[in-house]
Amino acid sequence: MNVDIGNALASVASPGVSKDSLERLDEHVADAHERIEGGMANAEHGYEALNLPRRTDPDEIRSAVEPVADADALLTVGIGGSALGAATITDALADESDTEAIYLDNVDPEWITGHLERLDLENTAINVVSRSGTTAETLANFLVVREAFESAGVDWTERTIVTTGEAGPLRELSDRHDLPSLKVPDGVPGRFSALSAVGLVAAEVCGHDLEALLEGAAAEAETLSGSLFDCPAYAYGATTYALDQRGAGVNAMVPYAESLETYAEWFAQLWAESLGKDDLGQTPARALGVTDQHSQLQLYRAGPRDKLVTFVSPGDLEDREIPETDVEDLSYLGGTGLGELLEAEFEATEASLAAAGRPNVRIELEGVDEYELGGLLYGMEAATVLAGELYGVNTFEQPAVEWAKKATRGLLGGGDFEEADAVAEKTALRIER
Amino acid sequence: MNVDIGNALASVASPGVSKDSLERLDEHVADAHERIEGGMANAEHGYEALNLPRRTDPDEIRSAVEPVADADALLTVGIGGSALGAATITDALADESDTEAIYLDNVDPEWITGHLERLDLENTAINVVSRSGTTAETLANFLVVREAFESAGVDWTERTIVTTGEAGPLRELSDRHDLPSLKVPDGVPGRFSALSAVGLVAAEVCGHDLEALLEGAAAEAETLSGSLFDCPAYAYGATTYALDQRGAGVNAMVPYAESLETYAEWFAQLWAESLGKDDLGQTPARALGVTDQHSQLQLYRAGPRDKLVTFVSPGDLEDREIPETDVEDLSYLGGTGLGELLEAEFEATEASLAAAGRPNVRIELEGVDEYELGGLLYGMEAATVLAGELYGVNTFEQPAVEWAKKATRGLLGGGDFEEADAVAEKTALRIER
Repeated sequence: MNVDIGNALASVASPGVSKDSLERLDEHVADAHERIEGGMANAEHGYEALNLPRRTDPDEIRSAVEPVADADALLTVGIGGSALGAATITDALADESDTEAIYLDNVDPEWITGHLERLDLENTAINVVSRSGTTAETLANFLVVREAFESAGVDWTERTIVTTGEAGPLRELSDRHDLPSLKVPDGVPGRFSALSAVGLVAAEVCGHDLEALLEGAAAEAETLSGSLFDCPAYAYGATTYALDQRGAGVNAMVPYAESLETYAEWFAQLWAESLGKDDLGQTPARALGVTDQHSQLQLYRAGPRDKLVTFVSPGDLEDREIPETDVEDLSYLGGTGLGELLEAEFEATEASLAAAGRPNVRIELEGVDEYELGGLLYGMEAATVLAGELYGVNTFEQPAVEWAKKATRGLLGGGDFEEADAVAEKTALRIER
Repeated sequence: MNVDIGNALASVASPGVSKDSLERLDEHVADAHERIEGGMANAEHGYEALNLPRRTDPDEIRSAVEPVADADALLTVGIGGSALGAATITDALADESDTEAIYLDNVDPEWITGHLERLDLENTAINVVSRSGTTAETLANFLVVREAFESAGVDWTERTIVTTGEAGPLRELSDRHDLPSLKVPDGVPGRFSALSAVGLVAAEVCGHDLEALLEGAAAEAETLSGSLFDCPAYAYGATTYALDQRGAGVNAMVPYAESLETYAEWFAQLWAESLGKDDLGQTPARALGVTDQHSQLQLYRAGPRDKLVTFVSPGDLEDREIPETDVEDLSYLGGTGLGELLEAEFEATEASLAAAGRPNVRIELEGVDEYELGGLLYGMEAATVLAGELYGVNTFEQPAVEWAKKATRGLLGGGDFEEADAVAEKTALRIER
């Protein structure tokens, strides 16, 4: 990926960052890079994620997946980092695949039932992903899916791939039934695991090119260096950090391609869960070009000066001509293409924010394919790690989610937890219809 | 809908609003309500939207839709307010319908081509919606769709319903081809038009109960009164306003049902485009329970104190039992239901934010059906209008989006616009791979 931070400069936008300030910040980037390089070299927790392009073995994934390679549909049972990386890849490349990829990343009973009733289970594969093997939502869904297969007379043990940690209930289950299984790599937090088996099993079942994904990521890894002016990922991480310090507490991620809608969700998890701690961190907002020009643009251009817009330009898409029309006022559209219109709207929207002095950054891809996606995923992970160093937070943990997990467990009778008692003590001020 | 603002009180959260402050604010709510009532009585621009439950005629919609009532798929061609209201309804109730509802609300050429190649056009209906009849994205898509029908040998004039203003190119086209057509009601901005033909044509084609939608909305309208303590919609609008004044610049909308995911998009447009002006307005962030507990919760609970979380509790869903398991550590799940798990996670997450002193508000539905959806849509519109009065902004306009429209037009050769020239003058600071 390439990154253009011109519209984030103080000469254009407010909040904005001056070239001088970026140069001073670059000294911290150099220090942070040293820390990151050291972490990678020592395979430290979290930093190890940035080694995935050369650690991940596509052959191992292919061989595990082989028994279900001809599935018409793939049910991935996982949540958060166990689903979003895979979904980003398979949704971005869905046009190229004959396999429908479905992600059971919620426990909504009606929605799950809808999927299970609709699918031809005999030609459906199951991809269950949980590092600990104890994630309540994932295990509950897996139990339900397994039962649905049994009820339909389909042997789920022939159609299931497991990706989990070295030990735990899911590992035991996989051993007991002799299921093809893969390991969530050590030292790689879920939200940084897209380029491991966690993200690539689904990509392989859907027929995508794992080597190209990893090569794109490796090319991005090559750019990591001691200066934000030499490394697109660090340019992104440092600029967003500088803008947050100057008041842009919201980061709106706006890809200009339908196929990248899920990418924005993946980014939102990566950014929020990695940096949102110690009362710090930007709030990611997800939007989509051009659709959200008719929804969020008014706010982005004329609301509070508390945000940065990140555009992702997908490069050339396969265009489709707009037929000529004699409709007055619209004849200029005839003979151009939908893709030309999309591109013009992107440039116009970017310029409209700059003209209003609103900071924005452009991430440029050269098409939406495996190589470019690999680069994008790796680049944004490296940007996040760099930002974490600059904020001085513990990028790789998410302690604040534990409270609700304990309370949930307590509410369902899974043990005594004071958190569950707090639920009953809720302060209410209800206004009823 | 019912609204519970207990967790937004200063005794629970920071930022929070004290009961005393709410009582003082209630005097402004009384004034605002008087303004709103007057606007409704005089059918003033914007306020007229709150009269829709009694203005909209379901029979007129049913009769226009009759020729395509048996369609297997419905392609709605519209963007922003011309799509999101309809999509909210048909996505929320998709389980009850045999008609697939698709929204062409973007100009991505590959995505459009994907839909047109996949669909059986002979059994597909077209619902084209644009008040002005000149919306570039909608007209470009309609031209493309029309051509695809012609290429497939399907008479599009037999399968198209038009919803547009009194005059304009789409009205002329509809007259020329004698298409069934409906009118976007006067005085109703797109984002407030869900309960008119704009939202209800799609609902009718998908077989939903228009009377129940309008009755639910009318019941909500009955609650509008001079005190936030008597009206759920005003309680929501006033509390969010008060929290924004106290530092909660972000409003995260988190429904706990997959079927309400599109509702969060609809709300995001309503809130952003209505209130995001004069450097004011909360930034809506969209999330989904329980999925985003594994993505955004860390930030919401431990990041900056700049946000409010709005939960939407869907009420009872049709549950699905989780099978018993001998997996150690997970036996507590066996025999409960996915819906029970969802509900426990919702309560736990809400309590986890309160325990961390983070403000949140609960919107309660009694199920996801036409009546409740009508109430939700109307209630959130009324909340938005009230908030607009309290901010003192022009709720019903969106002037900041004009710049990009002119620039787009100029870039595509549709006239001379200085905005298009500004695009070429972009400040670049590119970091390349």
